[in-house]
Amino acid sequence: MPRHPRLDPLADRYAARTHGMKTSEIRALFSVVSRPEVVSLAGGMPAVTALPLDAVGSMIGELVSGMGAQTLQYGSGQGDPRLRERICDVMALEGITDASPSEVVVTVGSQQGLDLVTRVFCDPGDVVLAEGPSYVGALGVFQAAEARVRHVPMDDDGLIPEALEQALLECRANGDRVKFLYTVPNYHNPGGVTLSEPRRQAIVDIADRYDLLVIEDNPYGLLGFDREPMRALRARDAQRVVYLGSFSKTFSPGLRVGWVLAPLAVREKLVLATEAQVLCPPSLTQYAVARYLDTQPWREQIKLFTELYRERRDATLESLDALMPPGTTWTRPDGGFYVWLKLPNGLDSKLMQPRAVNAHVAYVPGIGFYADGSGREHMRLSYCYPEPDQIREGVRRLARVIEAELDLHSTFDAVDTGSFRAVGRPVPTHTAETLVGPANSDRSEDPRA
Amino acid sequence: MPRHPRLDPLADRYAARTHGMKTSEIRALFSVVSRPEVVSLAGGMPAVTALPLDAVGSMIGELVSGMGAQTLQYGSGQGDPRLRERICDVMALEGITDASPSEVVVTVGSQQGLDLVTRVFCDPGDVVLAEGPSYVGALGVFQAAEARVRHVPMDDDGLIPEALEQALLECRANGDRVKFLYTVPNYHNPGGVTLSEPRRQAIVDIADRYDLLVIEDNPYGLLGFDREPMRALRARDAQRVVYLGSFSKTFSPGLRVGWVLAPLAVREKLVLATEAQVLCPPSLTQYAVARYLDTQPWREQIKLFTELYRERRDATLESLDALMPPGTTWTRPDGGFYVWLKLPNGLDSKLMQPRAVNAHVAYVPGIGFYADGSGREHMRLSYCYPEPDQIREGVRRLARVIEAELDLHSTFDAVDTGSFRAVGRPVPTHTAETLVGPANSDRSEDPRA
Repeated sequence: MPRHPRLDPLADRYAARTHGMKTSEIRALFSVVSRPEVVSLAGGMPAVTALPLDAVGSMIGELVSGMGAQTLQYGSGQGDPRLRERICDVMALEGITDASPSEVVVTVGSQQGLDLVTRVFCDPGDVVLAEGPSYVGALGVFQAAEARVRHVPMDDDGLIPEALEQALLECRANGDRVKFLYTVPNYHNPGGVTLSEPRRQAIVDIADRYDLLVIEDNPYGLLGFDREPMRALRARDAQRVVYLGSFSKTFSPGLRVGWVLAPLAVREKLVLATEAQVLCPPSLTQYAVARYLDTQPWREQIKLFTELYRERRDATLESLDALMPPGTTWTRPDGGFYVWLKLPNGLDSKLMQPRAVNAHVAYVPGIGFYADGSGREHMRLSYCYPEPDQIREGVRRLARVIEAELDLHSTFDAVDTGSFRAVGRPVPTHTAETLVGPANSDRSEDPRA
Repeated sequence: MPRHPRLDPLADRYAARTHGMKTSEIRALFSVVSRPEVVSLAGGMPAVTALPLDAVGSMIGELVSGMGAQTLQYGSGQGDPRLRERICDVMALEGITDASPSEVVVTVGSQQGLDLVTRVFCDPGDVVLAEGPSYVGALGVFQAAEARVRHVPMDDDGLIPEALEQALLECRANGDRVKFLYTVPNYHNPGGVTLSEPRRQAIVDIADRYDLLVIEDNPYGLLGFDREPMRALRARDAQRVVYLGSFSKTFSPGLRVGWVLAPLAVREKLVLATEAQVLCPPSLTQYAVARYLDTQPWREQIKLFTELYRERRDATLESLDALMPPGTTWTRPDGGFYVWLKLPNGLDSKLMQPRAVNAHVAYVPGIGFYADGSGREHMRLSYCYPEPDQIREGVRRLARVIEAELDLHSTFDAVDTGSFRAVGRPVPTHTAETLVGPANSDRSEDPRA
């Protein structure tokens, strides 16, 4: 029997949702990107080596030696009660002061939290509203649920309330079942922008007026460079906002500990859904996070992380300012991991990618962050992982690649081959107002890419 | 705004699959069961304190201190390559000698593996064949996928091949789309029986003849008391069998490390599905298992576990033999965690449960293990967790409860109130031949119950 059949004998047997899954083009690229000579501005990996590894190692070792009966055993589907208490303390930093541990469900990263929420609410064909661009991992969840994504544009102050209202009206006119708005209000992935204070209230007011459920995904909220954490949407509306949190950026992504805060009726559904999916989250990693919050200077560690990321953000923006050719634009994040860059003259970041890798620099093409195929003129640059000197070198290489593309572009344009018809076409900073379609499944070996 | 509204304002907004989810009746009971005076024969918790906790603690602590850049960081969706190699070594113990690490996907326990397989294959309304009774956590997965379960009867030699063939013919006649057979061939949960050697080949032959996919769930395969591990179904057919494995019973359930072995085309779908669900499994727990397999005497540890479970099985069977009233029957497992008991005279294990808890003994009623409401005269007894003396005391209490029920029963029967019409009705040992219905969602706080 052939071990590697060319034709899949089960091809006619998959579920409908499975046919929408595509092998990632980016994933193949990432084996190249992991070569040491390549500066990767693609991955979203936190700088975990800035943690006090000896102290964390001793702490976790003692949890196993001293509490193996708990840390190596099954736990409850909802998650460890002590951890859920500490999670409420963490959320209080963003103004959520009325959360009860009974409303918290611990998840295998906030990715599982979003998957559970989507499974609980979305039937095939239902509509999810999401920023354009939106987090690639969220688009994967919505695609797996066979939901349709309608992007709502952002600007430098985040999601545009008027555009949200417009989208809701149009969906209502179309008879679309809108199940929820999915939004990343702080230091958006990939947008790098933050929802302004007045807009937060506007979004909550719209949710109230249109009876809209809001999924607030907030992995980066404590990673602001210049200010105190902003008040969460959930702090303004406990009934219409389901909040997703994560320790991946404030402690460790390798532990896969996230959570959902939801009204009790929803929480009950989420627990049943997670029991069917994983029985319970890992006990050891939950105890590790709870003990870390109990015994380690975690607030100081977050401060250390943000100082490190601020330095890298500065290196990124200074290099972009100094080196990028005219016509290139980008966002200026004041927290989080990402810059969202728009290429000049309608260059195509996807087509340019192999040439960038040849020049030993990597990024994520913008199309990965849209469900509708737009985003070709954009790219996401991550500054979280490389050192400032690497970032500067990476931006230098990227600037050269873009310049070479522009040269090629103007050469071809002069002879009018038709290859670059996008020239001169107005390209909005944040596109994709009205399109609904299957999620683009570009994914990378680095799962946060 | 009320914090605990009596009516769920989102009740009209859930997905179709969510309406089938029911709050567990058993879960409420388990807060009672966790009282120290209650002997619980209900939970399926492994005896993790039999592990060398100091050595495992040091090992995991060193993994974090020395390899934090890997163990605390994101990993790949498919799972750590080193662990996948070691998983192939483990499967070789059951005759699977041709598996490649590239065909393995690491999952958050084998529960997630089954959920991924089901998501990849099942649309709503599709039929899954499963033993009757079947693992309660699997029924939860099938319900969440809105699949219909058709039970196939077992006897003391496991799944009955002729009954499987009959079920396939009837499904074909009905036009049902049968997506796969789900089976636990070794030390069945909850049945306690093992698929005999001749039947293994018969099942594989039927799968070949009917083009049937088989999901072989094998958490207990290495926990046999009297013999070498039996040859897996997957060892007989690499293309039609998808194999689910777990370290929950051979090492630790609190780490939540399981796996799927599948043909490459299916494996690719599973990776895309798991990326959408959890991004990647926890890195720390994967490194912990790989290091454990590399550096600790894991085969000897499994031997130690099986000796411990054998002693507990013996205590269970000896007590049952000595104490149970006539008419009670049970299976005699030679491995694993469970005895499947049938009550005399059609007593109802679900109705009897509160009285058992009052008598300070707990079990899982049989209806939890059927998708069609049958199993009322059965119960599952777990001997994996309590000490032999506790087991003997638990069985003593249970025998008294059953005797009291029989007394009550005969009293009521004498005055013919109609309350116990089941009396005299022949009750097959393994019922539920042809029924298809929604999964019963009884679940417990102990997730493996």
